[in-house]
Amino acid sequence: MAGNSFGTLFRFTTWGESHGPAIGVVVDGVPPRIPLHESDIQHWLDRRRPGQSRFTTQRREADRVEILSGVFAGFTTGAPISLLIRNEDVRSRDYSDIQEVYRPGHADFTYDMKYGIRDWRGGGRASARETACRVAAGAVARKVLGERIRIRGYLVQMGDLAIDRDRFDDAEIDRNPLFCPDAETAKRWEELLLDVRKQGSSIGAIVEVVASGVPPGLGEPVYDKLDADLAKAMMSINAVKGVEIGAGFAAARLRGEENADEIVRREGRPHFLSNRAGGILGGISTGQDIVVRFAVKPTSSILVPRRTIDRLGREREIVTRGRHDPCVGIRAVPVGEAMMACVLADHLLRQRAIADG
Amino acid sequence: MAGNSFGTLFRFTTWGESHGPAIGVVVDGVPPRIPLHESDIQHWLDRRRPGQSRFTTQRREADRVEILSGVFAGFTTGAPISLLIRNEDVRSRDYSDIQEVYRPGHADFTYDMKYGIRDWRGGGRASARETACRVAAGAVARKVLGERIRIRGYLVQMGDLAIDRDRFDDAEIDRNPLFCPDAETAKRWEELLLDVRKQGSSIGAIVEVVASGVPPGLGEPVYDKLDADLAKAMMSINAVKGVEIGAGFAAARLRGEENADEIVRREGRPHFLSNRAGGILGGISTGQDIVVRFAVKPTSSILVPRRTIDRLGREREIVTRGRHDPCVGIRAVPVGEAMMACVLADHLLRQRAIADG
Amino acid sequence: MAGNSFGTLFRFTTWGESHGPAIGVVVDGVPPRIPLHESDIQHWLDRRRPGQSRFTTQRREADRVEILSGVFAGFTTGAPISLLIRNEDVRSRDYSDIQEVYRPGHADFTYDMKYGIRDWRGGGRASARETACRVAAGAVARKVLGERIRIRGYLVQMGDLAIDRDRFDDAEIDRNPLFCPDAETAKRWEELLLDVRKQGSSIGAIVEVVASGVPPGLGEPVYDKLDADLAKAMMSINAVKGVEIGAGFAAARLRGEENADEIVRREGRPHFLSNRAGGILGGISTGQDIVVRFAVKPTSSILVPRRTIDRLGREREIVTRGRHDPCVGIRAVPVGEAMMACVLADHLLRQRAIADG
Amino acid sequence: MAGNSFGTLFRFTTWGESHGPAIGVVVDGVPPRIPLHESDIQHWLDRRRPGQSRFTTQRREADRVEILSGVFAGFTTGAPISLLIRNEDVRSRDYSDIQEVYRPGHADFTYDMKYGIRDWRGGGRASARETACRVAAGAVARKVLGERIRIRGYLVQMGDLAIDRDRFDDAEIDRNPLFCPDAETAKRWEELLLDVRKQGSSIGAIVEVVASGVPPGLGEPVYDKLDADLAKAMMSINAVKGVEIGAGFAAARLRGEENADEIVRREGRPHFLSNRAGGILGGISTGQDIVVRFAVKPTSSILVPRRTIDRLGREREIVTRGRHDPCVGIRAVPVGEAMMACVLADHLLRQRAIADG
Repeated sequence: MAGNSFGTLFRFTTWGESHGPAIGVVVDGVPPRIPLHESDIQHWLDRRRPGQSRFTTQRREADRVEILSGVFAGFTTGAPISLLIRNEDVRSRDYSDIQEVYRPGHADFTYDMKYGIRDWRGGGRASARETACRVAAGAVARKVLGERIRIRGYLVQMGDLAIDRDRFDDAEIDRNPLFCPDAETAKRWEELLLDVRKQGSSIGAIVEVVASGVPPGLGEPVYDKLDADLAKAMMSINAVKGVEIGAGFAAARLRGEENADEIVRREGRPHFLSNRAGGILGGISTGQDIVVRFAVKPTSSILVPRRTIDRLGREREIVTRGRHDPCVGIRAVPVGEAMMACVLADHLLRQRAIADG
Repeated sequence: MAGNSFGTLFRFTTWGESHGPAIGVVVDGVPPRIPLHESDIQHWLDRRRPGQSRFTTQRREADRVEILSGVFAGFTTGAPISLLIRNEDVRSRDYSDIQEVYRPGHADFTYDMKYGIRDWRGGGRASARETACRVAAGAVARKVLGERIRIRGYLVQMGDLAIDRDRFDDAEIDRNPLFCPDAETAKRWEELLLDVRKQGSSIGAIVEVVASGVPPGLGEPVYDKLDADLAKAMMSINAVKGVEIGAGFAAARLRGEENADEIVRREGRPHFLSNRAGGILGGISTGQDIVVRFAVKPTSSILVPRRTIDRLGREREIVTRGRHDPCVGIRAVPVGEAMMACVLADHLLRQRAIADG
Repeated sequence: MAGNSFGTLFRFTTWGESHGPAIGVVVDGVPPRIPLHESDIQHWLDRRRPGQSRFTTQRREADRVEILSGVFAGFTTGAPISLLIRNEDVRSRDYSDIQEVYRPGHADFTYDMKYGIRDWRGGGRASARETACRVAAGAVARKVLGERIRIRGYLVQMGDLAIDRDRFDDAEIDRNPLFCPDAETAKRWEELLLDVRKQGSSIGAIVEVVASGVPPGLGEPVYDKLDADLAKAMMSINAVKGVEIGAGFAAARLRGEENADEIVRREGRPHFLSNRAGGILGGISTGQDIVVRFAVKPTSSILVPRRTIDRLGREREIVTRGRHDPCVGIRAVPVGEAMMACVLADHLLRQRAIADG
Repeated sequence: MAGNSFGTLFRFTTWGESHGPAIGVVVDGVPPRIPLHESDIQHWLDRRRPGQSRFTTQRREADRVEILSGVFAGFTTGAPISLLIRNEDVRSRDYSDIQEVYRPGHADFTYDMKYGIRDWRGGGRASARETACRVAAGAVARKVLGERIRIRGYLVQMGDLAIDRDRFDDAEIDRNPLFCPDAETAKRWEELLLDVRKQGSSIGAIVEVVASGVPPGLGEPVYDKLDADLAKAMMSINAVKGVEIGAGFAAARLRGEENADEIVRREGRPHFLSNRAGGILGGISTGQDIVVRFAVKPTSSILVPRRTIDRLGREREIVTRGRHDPCVGIRAVPVGEAMMACVLADHLLRQRAIADG
């Protein structure tokens, strides 16, 4: 069972390779009569688009989305929504030297082990280009979620440099090209990135995604818990090596009374005094903010020479040219937001099915 | 779509509440002609069984498994395997005071929000008792995987105390009741646990699970990547708040050349010089050890009084009596191993389907 | 991917062999707060139960159902509902002579081809005994559907003898042991069955199942159309060889103007002047009665000697002793009703998910 | 859960409306290293293509397929295969009069009941145009099945006129535009069609699809039986009202000894003396020919005036203009073949997963 679909009720399927004619996504399960225009999707694609700052790959893609089905007179019809994005700035020659050699830290080796064949042009199916389709699906998911649910992603750490939570400013996130909510840290990251790039290297990062306005009751114990699906969603993003919810790994250090969020009554409604749970208890949303963090490894496409082997098993040394991001964590921000939106939309529909008619 | 099933080809469904007559699991998709006896399953259940040391809940359950179907003359038949475990030591009175009150950090509140009804006896479906079914399914999965694939779990951290990797001794894991691979740390944890228990508190932990002997090629990009499915599997375990693969969150601090595992040739075969990838690249197994860690929060069933509300929204204070684990991370070890086994068995069958006939 | 589950949102999984200790079903996806008692399920099991008349197998099973999970204080909780039925009247010796020989028309040969192993006792997993689990799941489905949706099955043909639609009397169905809605035909069928039994033979039949009160809008084009799922549901029942909706095969003989059901306005609502569509257009319910028919072959367990081979490929002659139904179509009636209920419950929940919240 | 996907391991998802910019299909789960060219798919699309004879709709579509992903250097890569077919000859004005009126026998009414919105242009998603995507997916499925499995469809009945099995000539099927295996009957059908067309009417038909060379062992009891999946596959095709396997509905008239296919030994192998089972026993293929028949209703797009209502519930009379097939059964032949191929490919992969590695 191939794995190019995600979700159960809100379910999307992506296809396409980095240097093929196009990439695309089919979103099935979208309720009818939701207004949807290409611009609704384009808006989010533009945030992820490469070539927008000196800190991301210089590949230039318009990433213009076309709606091919499922929308009629400006509204969804309940039929599958097919979205297409053409590949334009394709330079496969840049990659021809990796045709026979496995780049360390890349999927080249494993794709060959698994399939015995590999579309090596630009990383083929394993390229981060696929994430544009996730962002497109996420844009549709946001329409399903409606205005009340707000999803916000940003970087909280790059290399050793974490943001200062006391300086957290939501408005700052869109003011710098690094999705950094802390202006001062943003500057230090820029310096770090220039240094990293100069050395032909790359650097890891941690992304945080927060969803507010989520109603309590979303999540399906005991295997499709909301946090379990979020973990899968985020870990499926290229280069992600860890996912945590709320207090996350720090919870290991806590005592029970430090960790459990107390509940009081405020304005006649349940109110939690803290959110170490990250908005999820027993796999079900509490109504608090859903807080997810994920770690993105440094891209393995670097100019530093590394030892490796080729398809015939011969030892080689490799330097990965091509146009790459010094910190793929940056462009992972809109992707993480999109996956959050898709998971929430899916569970919103799943909950509707069992709630009173 | 309710979420009580896990896996696609190797697929199991669990049912049962903590204080109901029994719990059970149906495992579908097991290939035929695999030898399987109740003792094969009992062996692993016994490792998870409560009441075995002073460091786990004093509830006493024999956890004796019965095979009700799918096995004939000692071999699997290809039909679904139904496994049943009766609940014996049920003391629902212990829980009657939580019938109307939401324990902080527990699923009481969210189950009520979601379902509008809740089997409050012993935590009902949200109880860690359900994990016995995971262990049973995992035992079947191990038979599918065969002898070559070995799965090993242990604690690497409790509270602030991490093991010393230099003292790592595989044989030590089964010698202490804490699944600790470092004898010296085991002693310090015992002291910590006695202290925690005396205070009526609880403590978090980090579990590591390693699978060796896994062939390269397992995992289905781009959504059912091996690491994505492992993340979901582990995050679905009660009290887990974070999952990481290989270098995990530490990868955020690394440069590309530090992170990418170099490949050389050893004895005619590909050999990786390190394993920061945790045995997975591009969502597909490399043939190296699969390394997963997950963080377990401190259980919220504590004797320290905490503020909360009841079903009518009134503010209350609560102390959770009953028989609880001071560190649920301990008994999460066999559960994590079982989930690893199930994910690998599933992907082994999935890979078989597309490999040459 | 093994196939022991049915449905998507209302999803059940059955397990168990004819002569194992028990059979059972786990129903997942049942909305919470629906009243459910064992007697609700027992009622329908009793209709299917063998040994009730001289026209069905003389195997005597109480078929007493136990609810093991998912129900609390008389209401569903949203957790999976596990139902267990013990096998009591098991006489495996009756079958020992078929251990090595493939009964013609039975699944003996194909199970061996597929699995290389076979639980030959009483037909194992391929036994019609499995259908008790379908009936149990169907009983739960009926509770999900509520009182407004009524499902009714009956025999319309046995051998060459069809009922006379002019004598159709709904009340008659439960008055005779053959689920026959036409008293006169019922008598002729009884004679036919006595003759068939005397000859050690068996006879085929056609079952019709009608659901009334179904709201328009159920069914998910273009692959999970309501009729497509009904076709799968009915064809999956043992011994079924054909399924049709509304006019069915007779539609092949019609002209467009004869076939299309005209619509008028009656009491302010849409009213169809006929129902050749069988209540389904474009795979979606119209609000008219859903009408399904399926053909049941004569059981292959007969006393007439037949040529066959054994596991070693040697030619043999076989007579199938044991306790069998002369017309398995009779007991297929409650099974067909149950499958209709399950398909409708599933699609009701699926439609809820996309309808306005 | 929307229903635009079919299959489990070999799984395809279709999208697109009759008068949108394009239609398409994403096929996921195709094993790698299978040679695949656009011409392999075009070949089968050309058989289904409209406008090829005077007996099908005069809409002219080149139906030229483009492979957008999943194929590299002429071979499948294991990645999803995206196929696109542009809509060219779109005349939506023909349909503008049905914008507000429900055509009897069509899905207009039910789509509005279900979704509250409807792409009325050319039937939108409910149009038979969608079946081109099935044929494209079927072409890929045939490549997965390989040369040994041969699938052949043809008409066996139109209106009251059935073929004479004694005149069955496989070679004749491609010689006439009606997929008729009996030259004499083909002529009578042509006369019938001219008459039907002259009267502005339409006529039903029965299609038979036979697969030979299918290995024994395919099919997954007890819900994903091979016949159950075939029933669903065929019933999901536009206008199909009945499906049968082997003897089908005629089995209802038979005695056990007439129905069960005897087995003997021929040339050292099992040999069935008849094939009333249609190649399937217990839901698993026997190795004999798989024989499926399905009934196609007469299209409801006719020039004969019919009573109906409009969206506001007002009574209307309608005549459906536009370009339609007098017998949609004809073009259902390649579609039925394609669905057979897809079901078999899916079950071939499913069986591989549990067979010895």
